[in-house]
Amino acid sequence: MKPSIPKGTRDFSPIEMAKRNYIFNTIRDVFQLYGFQQIETPAMENLSTLLGKYGEEGDKLLFKILNSGDFLKDAPAELMEQRDSLHLTNKISEKGLRYDLTVPFARYVVQHRNDLQMPFKRYQIQPVWRADRPQKGRYREFYQCDADIVGSDSLLNEVELVTLIDEVFRRFGVRIVIKLNNRKVLSGIAEVIGAPDKLIDITVAIDKMDKIGLENVNAELLEKGLDESQVKAIEPLLTLSGTNDEKLATLDQLLATSEVGQKGIEELRYVIGHVAEVGTTATIELDVSLARGLNYYTGTILEVKALDVAIGSITGGGRYDNLTGVFGMPGLSGVGFSFGADRIFDVLNALDLYPADTMASAQVLFINFGDREAATSLRHVMALRKAGISAELYPDSAKMKKQMNYANDRKFPFVAIVGESEMEQGTITLKNMATGEQQALTCDQLIEILS
Amino acid sequence: MKPSIPKGTRDFSPIEMAKRNYIFNTIRDVFQLYGFQQIETPAMENLSTLLGKYGEEGDKLLFKILNSGDFLKDAPAELMEQRDSLHLTNKISEKGLRYDLTVPFARYVVQHRNDLQMPFKRYQIQPVWRADRPQKGRYREFYQCDADIVGSDSLLNEVELVTLIDEVFRRFGVRIVIKLNNRKVLSGIAEVIGAPDKLIDITVAIDKMDKIGLENVNAELLEKGLDESQVKAIEPLLTLSGTNDEKLATLDQLLATSEVGQKGIEELRYVIGHVAEVGTTATIELDVSLARGLNYYTGTILEVKALDVAIGSITGGGRYDNLTGVFGMPGLSGVGFSFGADRIFDVLNALDLYPADTMASAQVLFINFGDREAATSLRHVMALRKAGISAELYPDSAKMKKQMNYANDRKFPFVAIVGESEMEQGTITLKNMATGEQQALTCDQLIEILS
Repeated sequence: MKPSIPKGTRDFSPIEMAKRNYIFNTIRDVFQLYGFQQIETPAMENLSTLLGKYGEEGDKLLFKILNSGDFLKDAPAELMEQRDSLHLTNKISEKGLRYDLTVPFARYVVQHRNDLQMPFKRYQIQPVWRADRPQKGRYREFYQCDADIVGSDSLLNEVELVTLIDEVFRRFGVRIVIKLNNRKVLSGIAEVIGAPDKLIDITVAIDKMDKIGLENVNAELLEKGLDESQVKAIEPLLTLSGTNDEKLATLDQLLATSEVGQKGIEELRYVIGHVAEVGTTATIELDVSLARGLNYYTGTILEVKALDVAIGSITGGGRYDNLTGVFGMPGLSGVGFSFGADRIFDVLNALDLYPADTMASAQVLFINFGDREAATSLRHVMALRKAGISAELYPDSAKMKKQMNYANDRKFPFVAIVGESEMEQGTITLKNMATGEQQALTCDQLIEILS
Repeated sequence: MKPSIPKGTRDFSPIEMAKRNYIFNTIRDVFQLYGFQQIETPAMENLSTLLGKYGEEGDKLLFKILNSGDFLKDAPAELMEQRDSLHLTNKISEKGLRYDLTVPFARYVVQHRNDLQMPFKRYQIQPVWRADRPQKGRYREFYQCDADIVGSDSLLNEVELVTLIDEVFRRFGVRIVIKLNNRKVLSGIAEVIGAPDKLIDITVAIDKMDKIGLENVNAELLEKGLDESQVKAIEPLLTLSGTNDEKLATLDQLLATSEVGQKGIEELRYVIGHVAEVGTTATIELDVSLARGLNYYTGTILEVKALDVAIGSITGGGRYDNLTGVFGMPGLSGVGFSFGADRIFDVLNALDLYPADTMASAQVLFINFGDREAATSLRHVMALRKAGISAELYPDSAKMKKQMNYANDRKFPFVAIVGESEMEQGTITLKNMATGEQQALTCDQLIEILS
């Protein structure tokens, strides 16, 4: 009868927490460097806030909270008799767990509109819950990590986000490519081939370029009702090559007759140009096949891929024009993105990129040789802590072997010994656990060495 | 149709988050200094883990998650017909939201017992949920912040926890008293007055000393079936005065005939003595009326009160002998406590104890005078960030007044101006928002000043 946790959820042990904290703290530091401010929203939202925002499938994947008390009291007899789970749900449940950070953020902006100073640059790092079928790398509880700038349609915001993403991965030591596209370019493509009504079919198909290749994309386009000449017209767009400037020049010619296409090119040119001017560690790549959440984004679209690990997108985002319309506040433009925390965790694990001290416990463990020695050790421990050095005293005067096992398991870099002879001489023996080297020190010397 | 959040829950705005982060980071820093390691457990636990752990009332206050899909499919017809909400609950719900951090921690220890090195010093800072009636200062979602040491019955652990708590409130600048008691002393009291079976009644009554006074405590004791002489015998215990040593000496006499009482006194003497030896900023006070969660604690009991704000206990804890018994792993001793994050937040607010820079946004805002100037400003902003100085460029070339309003609202300490004349001279005008003072600087000088 060993206890367990719900499937698709996880406990995070100290080592995992240390790694995750390293990731979140790094991201948080850069967010703050860029002037983003943190908010948090409740885990539970009213179902009226959540339902209908993620499509029919999303509605099913929401975790719903059973109403408290006699929840069946007012349940319609008909639904009870028919055992109509689907329609009974919103009679016995009014709240659901957060499914992402975007809808709660939109709700937050509308609810607090009178207190917000625009542009509002917020970040949010919180778990979300989805009743998805659990599988490798997909969990029912996972953290999202979003940053958005709303209330400004300046493309300088895009420039900021790209350089911010670059800085985060530079700090992680992960080599990345940041792919950029613009929804208006996609509209332009549909326009110039004479199939503006097929925009969604076209983008869904070309979004698969990476995975299924040109031939299959073409097949899908034909299947969706494009004719041979239209498919041929798209082909050069999908096989753009050269530098970003060269790609932009080719695009410029191909979309010469589309006003919206030209606007998209102009925006891409601005963003790519300004990003190049301030400089990045990451590769910046214009990728016309990038579509991501087409129905949501209206301008810039961006996505990050790791160069040295085969894993999907590790960050994605873009510009939207109507974040809050569904809550009765239309026309608010913004641009934002989400770091994929779990995938970044996997990438750093795969490349072993955690700094050496990420997993360290306290720096030094004092061995416990009994009451009298422990009392002296405790004074040293407190002196070390006062100097900002994390230290522990083993609480029991257990066998030396047991205490050393603890020191090894917890990966203490140093062990300090205050036994009978050290008591007499007023010293501390410091053992370096990596080299085995020992030295006799005063407490002041110990503090100096460990500082 | 303004959107809202479920009652009893809260959004945390940037200013509130900054304050809360200050609190949690301070606590986290001290935990780490003391060698505690962080874990996190899922928001959802199996109901079998949670039910029966918080009493009948607690079971009702658990938020339960409705099963996904056709949850009514296998619901017993009888319960459906009778609309028996209570018994139907566990037919249509298998998971509940975390109600505290103690039960998930116990479950964690048992589930991961083979991977844990004892003593295990863990901390955990996560929200919990209770379907309580919301009222001032009581929420349905709130953070708990727990630290425990399990797998060691050494009283040095108690000493560590007391000094840790002292250090946290010293850093906050909150003057506190740490009250200490020992469950064995309470048992001793019941024993020496010849009413060991009345232990719970006695402690429930004397726990109210603070609130209702001696006379009412005595009345309650009589009502619970103690006789006059027994009540008289307890009185000197409740009115102990003098230093902790004096109180211990008096207790020693009063509980001379009780073995368990003597053991309690010995433990208190050890803890109070060792804490005094290492020294604390807080007042340490032996308080025999302190009982807290009597059915749970088996040794030391501790509680923290703020001296300068009238608010209940802001931290509490103690030693327990059977954390994990309910999950089939008996006899694991531990000692721990919980910081009351929401109350600490209230105390720091009441005393206005947040450091001046807690609420600061980025340090400097560059005003946007149009494309050309913005491009130059962006280079400066990036140079500042590279030097670790948080900086922002206003994204739009909006009216000066609007940009200055933004700077004021967001509390930027400095505003930087790169207009036409600065462009010509290659300078930046830095305005100190507090003094109004302005100076012309190069980018390097600016970095030096703001570093």
